[in-house]
Amino acid sequence: MSYTLDKRVEGEFDEVVEQTTAALSEEGFGVLSDIDVQQTLTEKLDVEFRQYRILGACNPPLAQQALEDELRVGALLPCNVIVYETDDGDIGVSAVDPEVMLSVVDNPELDAVATDVRERFERVLDALPDA
Amino acid sequence: MSYTLDKRVEGEFDEVVEQTTAALSEEGFGVLSDIDVQQTLTEKLDVEFRQYRILGACNPPLAQQALEDELRVGALLPCNVIVYETDDGDIGVSAVDPEVMLSVVDNPELDAVATDVRERFERVLDALPDA
Repeated sequence: MSYTLDKRVEGEFDEVVEQTTAALSEEGFGVLSDIDVQQTLTEKLDVEFRQYRILGACNPPLAQQALEDELRVGALLPCNVIVYETDDGDIGVSAVDPEVMLSVVDNPELDAVATDVRERFERVLDALPDA
Repeated sequence: MSYTLDKRVEGEFDEVVEQTTAALSEEGFGVLSDIDVQQTLTEKLDVEFRQYRILGACNPPLAQQALEDELRVGALLPCNVIVYETDDGDIGVSAVDPEVMLSVVDNPELDAVATDVRERFERVLDALPDA
């Protein structure tokens, strides 16, 4: 089983980032962190890298519930959605599969939250235009 | 096996955040994201929550190596270190265990990076004052 939910998306890179952010908002997720991997690697290592963004998505009620069930689960939060150039020049969007990620936590109380987040991420990917 | 490496730390909350950030820097990690969970939950849900920070730690050469081995691994990055008030009023610092987290990725090329990051996180925790 893969650890991400994946889609190839039609459009320009920055536009796809905006569309992904908007689709996350529709499902109740704010973007709490936004890491530009290309810029970071250029600044820190002076290397070229493809366009690649890591959006840290947080649905506050679900995050609160998860943290009340399992205090240290913040070490696995927020749930990331990445937007990146693929090897063949498309734009890929991948969301971490919360069911797989939270499988490392031995706490069945998290199962319902994980399933809820997964279903929301599936709808986020469905909302983006197919490549 | 736990999914975090944990330590109880002596000191005030904000001071521990600063010490953790400094210890991460000594091991080559910058903090690329810094989420104040208490503030986020207060703003979004108007609820009270303990002090709790999620520091997203990135060692650029190791991140680059991981991304070259496995493009979608950014969905699991950066590696988080959390600083939080425990139930009994101490300050806890927990780093995600990269060996456990990356176990969801079926790619043995990542094993060396995961072990390297884990050893660095162990030294980060060792550098903090015991409670």
